[in-house]
Amino acid sequence: MKPRFAVRWRDLDQLGHVNSVVFLTYLEEGRTTWLGGLLGPQFETNQYVIARVELDYLAEIPSGTEFVETQHEIAAVGRSSVTLDETLSIVGGDIVARGRVVLVMWEPDHHRSRPLSNHELTALNQQLVR
Amino acid sequence: MKPRFAVRWRDLDQLGHVNSVVFLTYLEEGRTTWLGGLLGPQFETNQYVIARVELDYLAEIPSGTEFVETQHEIAAVGRSSVTLDETLSIVGGDIVARGRVVLVMWEPDHHRSRPLSNHELTALNQQLVR
Amino acid sequence: MKPRFAVRWRDLDQLGHVNSVVFLTYLEEGRTTWLGGLLGPQFETNQYVIARVELDYLAEIPSGTEFVETQHEIAAVGRSSVTLDETLSIVGGDIVARGRVVLVMWEPDHHRSRPLSNHELTALNQQLVR
Amino acid sequence: MKPRFAVRWRDLDQLGHVNSVVFLTYLEEGRTTWLGGLLGPQFETNQYVIARVELDYLAEIPSGTEFVETQHEIAAVGRSSVTLDETLSIVGGDIVARGRVVLVMWEPDHHRSRPLSNHELTALNQQLVR
Repeated sequence: MKPRFAVRWRDLDQLGHVNSVVFLTYLEEGRTTWLGGLLGPQFETNQYVIARVELDYLAEIPSGTEFVETQHEIAAVGRSSVTLDETLSIVGGDIVARGRVVLVMWEPDHHRSRPLSNHELTALNQQLVR
Repeated sequence: MKPRFAVRWRDLDQLGHVNSVVFLTYLEEGRTTWLGGLLGPQFETNQYVIARVELDYLAEIPSGTEFVETQHEIAAVGRSSVTLDETLSIVGGDIVARGRVVLVMWEPDHHRSRPLSNHELTALNQQLVR
Repeated sequence: MKPRFAVRWRDLDQLGHVNSVVFLTYLEEGRTTWLGGLLGPQFETNQYVIARVELDYLAEIPSGTEFVETQHEIAAVGRSSVTLDETLSIVGGDIVARGRVVLVMWEPDHHRSRPLSNHELTALNQQLVR
Repeated sequence: MKPRFAVRWRDLDQLGHVNSVVFLTYLEEGRTTWLGGLLGPQFETNQYVIARVELDYLAEIPSGTEFVETQHEIAAVGRSSVTLDETLSIVGGDIVARGRVVLVMWEPDHHRSRPLSNHELTALNQQLVR
């Protein structure tokens, strides 16, 4: 199941397409939904921060686009980090961006990274694509 | 002169720091200011799109931060593209992110890329750092 | 049919609830969807601007909320303006905000207001609630 | 001293002017700066929520605008609420919006309203305009 999101009018900029920065908000949103499905309801949206992002923009998301969807695959699991390969697509259409993101698990109350829990390690390693 | 921007309360997320996606809005804002200074007033903010971004997050921008600033250097100039090395810093503090972005010149009325003009080529090549 | 929208993690602020300003983005989004249904596909999202907004906030949209929906009713139709009564609700839950907005029809290419067309007048007056 | 803010490219929408919702982000930003100056450094940005907003839009903030500024006056002080009259202007230009907002003091850890402290009451009442 790919997370799927409605494009908002506010997501577009003066160029009449979705602003490039908003692509990352879609991926953030999809990633958190996807990770919650993988790691269970105890995984809340404040459990990680971004350490690195790289994204290739392949096409515009033009005015009038209704829905986009994201796809996420685990590329690597570290001690406190997870690397994901991600794509963003127009629903019923093409892939518009493809990239990779490195997450670091986070203790929100202490503003510092934390190691992956055993539960998280097990669940993530089961999904390793290669 | 480094472009400098006030952090807004709305830029922060539930983790009590600036949302990772907003780092790219700061860089977008600084880049456009910087390019306008380089290419002259005829260069408007709708003259390019993003083809690729990569960004390493080095530190949080914590709650209470007043200003951030960006720095941009030209790494490469193509036929219709420009590659920039960029940093984002807290004013009076540390670098919080460092990355590279590939821009493609854009015809806003036709939603397609365009070659760099002679004026743009000359101005950009003069700033090539190496 | 009430327009319905997914809450994004980015919509929340440091207080752990949806930022008050984002309520207006939800209403903007719902309003445009609703007006498009009423006025037909020739009504594009750039056909009006806001002249006045008033909104009473009745409850928080807490962290974890999945969907919100909006409801719109026509309170008055002028020569170039439309007044709407609007509510924002959590899907399956309470009304969280209730307000009124005055729209002015807009010529996007000329940055000026325009009178309602005959087609728009007819369609809107048929929906007048009282 | 009026709080003053740089307009970002991202604040504009497809109509080539600042999106109407962003006007409220400027006012939010100016309000918090202004209240912090009045109530002292112990007043943090998470000490209030919005109970009601009304705003008349008087003019566009066009593409190319560099700075806006806000002005705030206390219209009424309640037991746990403060009513402010607010304007938003282009720096060196016209007032573009004028409105009124009702704030309610907030306990961020308990997600509930709180009465104004004696310190807050004294400081706010001294600024009552009439």
